[in-house]
Amino acid sequence: MLLLSIDYRSSTPAYRQISERVMQLAAAGTLPPGTRLPPTRTLAVTLGVHRDTVVRAYRELRALGYLESRPGSYTVMRQRYREPGARAAVSPGARLSHRAPTSAAPPSTLPEVEASHSVAGVIDFASHLPDPTLAPFDYLRRCMKRVLAGRDREFLVHYPDPRGLASLREAIAQRMVRHGVAVSADEIVVTNGAQQGLDLILRLFVRPGDGVAVESPTYGMALSLLRTHRARPVPIAMRADGLDLAQLARRLSRGSARRRPRLLYTMPNFHNPTGITTSQAHREALLATAECHRLPIVEDGFDEELNFSGPAVLPIKSIDARGVVLYLGTPSKLVFPGLRIGWIAAPRAIVDQLTALQRATSLGGNALAQALAARLYAGSEFDVHLRRIHRVYQRRMQAMADGLTEHLPPHVRWTRPQGGYLAWLQVTAPTRSEAELVARAHRAGVQVTPGAAGFTGATRDAFLRVSIACVDEGKIAEGCRRLGEALR
Amino acid sequence: MLLLSIDYRSSTPAYRQISERVMQLAAAGTLPPGTRLPPTRTLAVTLGVHRDTVVRAYRELRALGYLESRPGSYTVMRQRYREPGARAAVSPGARLSHRAPTSAAPPSTLPEVEASHSVAGVIDFASHLPDPTLAPFDYLRRCMKRVLAGRDREFLVHYPDPRGLASLREAIAQRMVRHGVAVSADEIVVTNGAQQGLDLILRLFVRPGDGVAVESPTYGMALSLLRTHRARPVPIAMRADGLDLAQLARRLSRGSARRRPRLLYTMPNFHNPTGITTSQAHREALLATAECHRLPIVEDGFDEELNFSGPAVLPIKSIDARGVVLYLGTPSKLVFPGLRIGWIAAPRAIVDQLTALQRATSLGGNALAQALAARLYAGSEFDVHLRRIHRVYQRRMQAMADGLTEHLPPHVRWTRPQGGYLAWLQVTAPTRSEAELVARAHRAGVQVTPGAAGFTGATRDAFLRVSIACVDEGKIAEGCRRLGEALR
Repeated sequence: MLLLSIDYRSSTPAYRQISERVMQLAAAGTLPPGTRLPPTRTLAVTLGVHRDTVVRAYRELRALGYLESRPGSYTVMRQRYREPGARAAVSPGARLSHRAPTSAAPPSTLPEVEASHSVAGVIDFASHLPDPTLAPFDYLRRCMKRVLAGRDREFLVHYPDPRGLASLREAIAQRMVRHGVAVSADEIVVTNGAQQGLDLILRLFVRPGDGVAVESPTYGMALSLLRTHRARPVPIAMRADGLDLAQLARRLSRGSARRRPRLLYTMPNFHNPTGITTSQAHREALLATAECHRLPIVEDGFDEELNFSGPAVLPIKSIDARGVVLYLGTPSKLVFPGLRIGWIAAPRAIVDQLTALQRATSLGGNALAQALAARLYAGSEFDVHLRRIHRVYQRRMQAMADGLTEHLPPHVRWTRPQGGYLAWLQVTAPTRSEAELVARAHRAGVQVTPGAAGFTGATRDAFLRVSIACVDEGKIAEGCRRLGEALR
Repeated sequence: MLLLSIDYRSSTPAYRQISERVMQLAAAGTLPPGTRLPPTRTLAVTLGVHRDTVVRAYRELRALGYLESRPGSYTVMRQRYREPGARAAVSPGARLSHRAPTSAAPPSTLPEVEASHSVAGVIDFASHLPDPTLAPFDYLRRCMKRVLAGRDREFLVHYPDPRGLASLREAIAQRMVRHGVAVSADEIVVTNGAQQGLDLILRLFVRPGDGVAVESPTYGMALSLLRTHRARPVPIAMRADGLDLAQLARRLSRGSARRRPRLLYTMPNFHNPTGITTSQAHREALLATAECHRLPIVEDGFDEELNFSGPAVLPIKSIDARGVVLYLGTPSKLVFPGLRIGWIAAPRAIVDQLTALQRATSLGGNALAQALAARLYAGSEFDVHLRRIHRVYQRRMQAMADGLTEHLPPHVRWTRPQGGYLAWLQVTAPTRSEAELVARAHRAGVQVTPGAAGFTGATRDAFLRVSIACVDEGKIAEGCRRLGEALR
């Protein structure tokens, strides 16, 4: 056992030095299985360490399967099948006969999420999340204190209700009444953010090869999700007043029943990426078309409460008397996107099926986040927060409108949105590719999002999405100046 | 406007009486679109209420789409497409051309989850979650305070890392070393509980019609999940020492490649529902078989840390040198199942694909629960809690063993588990059905779980699962007496 010695200058604790050395000797075959180790007391004396140090090393080695006890209190080296953590000679993926979904883009391509971390010095027109500097942490802390002190905490010690906490579903139902939607708590299922809500709907309604009508352009992560489901996106052109209703009607009337879209995914308010809000008339016509063709509408209301330029048009769901609309909601664009809270409001029969699916696939959502969200929504401070961010974003959007008007060259078109975080630039007859334009903008010191991710195919013009979400009002004019320079 | 009057004795606020009456009149056609409403000041005088009351009523009506403003500050009734909340004449589900997955069992059948709420007076041998009365709420509160005070809270204001918070993945990796599994934080993806981890794995590896080998019996919710994926369970008989290895080998060797199982789902420790723990030799043989047939093993370690009767056997993952094991972990059976924290430890290439899928389907998990779980795991109090519950459960399992030995009639067989919460009773040559036995037990004042949910087909014997998780030590003997009476 003189193979063991302790280096007292090392930052590795003595017990760990012992256990690591024993593992090395085992791997080298110097301590084969069955080798009897000295009693802890003896080894402690030999090494000049406290006996506890040796006891701890032996305990770790026993936990790792290197040692076992024999009758008579002997400790011997154990036969391990293989060393833990020994690396495979072949690529591990290659050994597993899995089939990757076509969806599984490598995690390195995270356009929307990566954009949330702004580059120093560069002005951030890319982030699409509520400004972290405006987050109501004090309110959150007070709500959490109440959650952990009250009866809410009981939800933490049980498996969750797969529909979501009743208190949150009730708070959501009350909130939706303000938007003209009369739903009860039983017509709501809480999800892990709106994205998981859309995933759940696709799992229920869509099979591989099915068509799903989407605006063109649409939210890039919705297209990713369709690819995951091996669904076929059916692009419907986006016009200045919303998706092209005539084109949608043609897509629903022509071709075999099998080829017709099974769902429509739409964002009527402050559309991502174009910023367009549709009129009441457009919504009524869209609903009439959907009813006629029995086409379920997934209405993504992710930005419903970002109507900082005055009252917004009511959601399609508010006029949905026949139950063809599945409404997606979330507070993620208002507060704490990391909470991952979203919901689906839909007819009871659909909610029951979505709930069964939610239960089978995850037992249910996070009770802590749900209890917290219920408290956040129920308190009047939520509306105080909303009014505050509305004022901030209204000023930012004004600054963006002024800046774009002043600095953009004439071949770049854009329209001022009524709310939300986004404006959409159309670079007509571009002499450079979209990627080159984004790179030029970045070199000029402003980060923007390329439009390509929202389209299912190539486009003639180049498109850029700019966001006011995470940029101080005072920097917006300079950002527009840099952008104008890059696009000239 | 004399159609409006205020009832001051009503508990409905005055403003709400006004708005509701206007909605009624609109629905009745008495106030058609375009009808000009009196100015708020005039109506306030007429009704004898404060002007703010009328302003509030008008604001609500405007929000609900009943009113609109016209030039010259007139307020007029607006054309609504339909009344919000008007109910469909036809069943809403019937109008939507959805296809329910065969999985979608109605939410009324929630065996495992409903069982968590014990019936008063009845002794609860059914619940399978950590005893709520042992939950370390004070520790939770201290951890949460640190989460909300520190840098952790930054995670709340961004979209999450779809792999899970780095701090939690590191805490998990350190924890797994104790079980002989050497994985780095990059070989872990955090999920919404172990159930969503299994769902994610099935989404990556399994297509409709594919076979998945499972122990027979297995965890009922795993069978539910397989049905959701329209996968075909391939039952492998459970013997006293674990799944029948010879039968597994036959299933892997015979038949066309297309018919062979694509995955094995197994619970080597304190198996649910049988309580069986397999030996190191069984694990090594199982791994060798899987490697030979290139069969990925999903090892569900949900109960890894409930080894209260001494050191447990190390996980299969600890000897997985070739990367064929996908390990599922969770703290849900130790603390706070409502947190919904789980993880998959797998080779990096697989983790990357699971991460891409996690991102496409939900952007990522709940940052708050993850930050909290990282703190819970990192603190030494977690182990203090574990030692405490180990002592409690060890005594309960002893009481259960004593009680079953004393009270069960000879035609009921059972084996004492080495850990976990579950014991498994085999009622040989039953004269009554399993459902009748469960009902008789309930009438005798003890709740148990029928075994049928864990099998893919009918069984000759009847099986009952009994759990020590949520029943006080002092009540166990009486519970066993009642159970013995019911089974006699």
